[in-house]
Amino acid sequence: MSVDEMRVLEALEALGRRLRDQILKGEPPALEIPARTLANVVWDPKSKMLKLGPRKLRREFLDMGEAKKFMQTVLMLSLIVRARREGDYPTIRDLYYAGKHTIEYVDEHGRRRREETWDSQRESDSVIQDIEVATGLLREHMGILHDTKGKIVGRLIVRSAGDVIDCSRMGDGAYSIPPNPDSLEILEVDAEYVLVIEKDAIFNRLNKERFWEKNKCLLVTGKGQPDRSTRRMVRRLWEEFGLPVYVLTDADPYGFYIYSVYRSGSISLGYESERLATPGARFLGLTVTDIYEYKIPRNFIIKAKERDLKRAKELMNYPWFRQSKEWMRQLKLFLQRQEKVEIEALSGHGFKFLTERYIPEKLSSGKWIE
Amino acid sequence: MSVDEMRVLEALEALGRRLRDQILKGEPPALEIPARTLANVVWDPKSKMLKLGPRKLRREFLDMGEAKKFMQTVLMLSLIVRARREGDYPTIRDLYYAGKHTIEYVDEHGRRRREETWDSQRESDSVIQDIEVATGLLREHMGILHDTKGKIVGRLIVRSAGDVIDCSRMGDGAYSIPPNPDSLEILEVDAEYVLVIEKDAIFNRLNKERFWEKNKCLLVTGKGQPDRSTRRMVRRLWEEFGLPVYVLTDADPYGFYIYSVYRSGSISLGYESERLATPGARFLGLTVTDIYEYKIPRNFIIKAKERDLKRAKELMNYPWFRQSKEWMRQLKLFLQRQEKVEIEALSGHGFKFLTERYIPEKLSSGKWIE
Repeated sequence: MSVDEMRVLEALEALGRRLRDQILKGEPPALEIPARTLANVVWDPKSKMLKLGPRKLRREFLDMGEAKKFMQTVLMLSLIVRARREGDYPTIRDLYYAGKHTIEYVDEHGRRRREETWDSQRESDSVIQDIEVATGLLREHMGILHDTKGKIVGRLIVRSAGDVIDCSRMGDGAYSIPPNPDSLEILEVDAEYVLVIEKDAIFNRLNKERFWEKNKCLLVTGKGQPDRSTRRMVRRLWEEFGLPVYVLTDADPYGFYIYSVYRSGSISLGYESERLATPGARFLGLTVTDIYEYKIPRNFIIKAKERDLKRAKELMNYPWFRQSKEWMRQLKLFLQRQEKVEIEALSGHGFKFLTERYIPEKLSSGKWIE
Repeated sequence: MSVDEMRVLEALEALGRRLRDQILKGEPPALEIPARTLANVVWDPKSKMLKLGPRKLRREFLDMGEAKKFMQTVLMLSLIVRARREGDYPTIRDLYYAGKHTIEYVDEHGRRRREETWDSQRESDSVIQDIEVATGLLREHMGILHDTKGKIVGRLIVRSAGDVIDCSRMGDGAYSIPPNPDSLEILEVDAEYVLVIEKDAIFNRLNKERFWEKNKCLLVTGKGQPDRSTRRMVRRLWEEFGLPVYVLTDADPYGFYIYSVYRSGSISLGYESERLATPGARFLGLTVTDIYEYKIPRNFIIKAKERDLKRAKELMNYPWFRQSKEWMRQLKLFLQRQEKVEIEALSGHGFKFLTERYIPEKLSSGKWIE
């Protein structure tokens, strides 16, 4: 077990130890957990991040309304502690099944009754999140696995599980970002910026053109809405190596939302942002104004759908968009014109337009949005 | 340009040269293209593959009903040839935009009219498929890119674009399979079989446990329904290195369908199978009978939905299922019990059950389905 793994196990065990001490002292057992409610997610303009506020929940075993949640939390904690002790790496879905069972009991009227420990993964995921905020650990640190979508290439050398991986020697493929990027030791970074690309196919194209080599950058894709591992990887490159991060998406509210997830996270999972968000991330494009400035042909323009308009209005309420004059201008223009464009539309100006003109022009003239 | 790339360019140019020769001889230009219609997709029981039958379409320029399709095909061919000559790697979406424009003309009544070269990507993709069957090349060979989802780890060393990549040295990550696996030179394979895993999170778990090292195998995932590149990679490992291929999915018709795609491809894209299918692929599980033999707890069993039943009935009509007694038994039992189970349900027996009991037991007792 590595030092990091031991520290994780200790933090988890400490939670259980507190309960044991309460019981031995004859106190009613209770857990204190920072509240993950929307009301307790605070926008911190200084760090440009969503943070959990000071409110805490007390989850008491002897409170009828809390007993089930209390039991679920302790059950999940015991599953995770056992997995760590035995070197298992369950997925969140595995944990759901491993903990799911039927409790039979006799109620106060003498009737036999049955109760499931949890009915859906939503319930088991929710207590994992509680354990995350109670310990300050990400579930990735606890060895819990999930789907990963992220890929990275460029002059970056990392060590993972004893292997040294050179992300500039992946041929036409890429390095698939591991579930827990914090377990990576970043040995060497020889790049001037990180370019995050919404679409996997565009990532493949820029990789095939060896854009990262010609432009001294790292290429990352999270294939649309990024997973937690991709976000954490980008955050580390920004935070630890001071690399500027630029995000390239379609010119539509879904693309802007993807940028927003990299930059600040989602409000409903605000507590993750402190570890996963990259508040310095810059939006390179495509912007709404690009549609007109780059003279995208009329027949390439797609009419916005109702859900695009709805999402644009939602974005206008996010603090990090609301405080940016340029973002508000873009979103207002979008709502007025109701037009969107895909990044591939630039191929109307030739296949090299994106890499030889659009990106270099945007970068050299500083025309990104923050 | 490599020898392979030159051969590709020549095959594409030959198509155009035939048209030029027709015109110079004063003949009406016409293309001959194998028909991709369902009626021309034939199940070949000997090779256990879907193949294109002998029917060909004649696409004539001077036929009013064919002129637009003829023009679309020649337009696409010219875009692809130009990309190959200039070393560009457009995505299928890029090609759609690059070829999309409005043709203005005056009709026989003197009215000005406008016509789009194509209205949707379905139209441009369709002519790419025609060029594939007309040249016998996959679009990947033509340098056309798309989304890729596949990952691979294990004792496998490949060369791609000059880089030598050791897939056993990826740490907790993996090698992301490149868009065109035929461009890979497979230098060394030290494995006894390929285990294809439906779910990415389960792939991550087996990788984290270094299952491939302990069991001398290669692990592959295509994240649900596999993309063409993942299928081609698996096919190469089976065909060129004689590795048995086992597919591990949930016990439900969607999982069985994913196996079916690896094994035989989809009927509507039957022409791809000759290059992408792995007719020897074996279904390791989970089977319908596993639900009962492995004593999956009742509360882990999910009631089948209408679409599951519908898909099971469809599968029973596929020739490769119909000819297998064991598959018919499984599908009938599914329709009778209407119950399904996820692979993670095995975690109810402990997190190590899948890797230390289920898979080894199935392999050593030969209890897979073909």
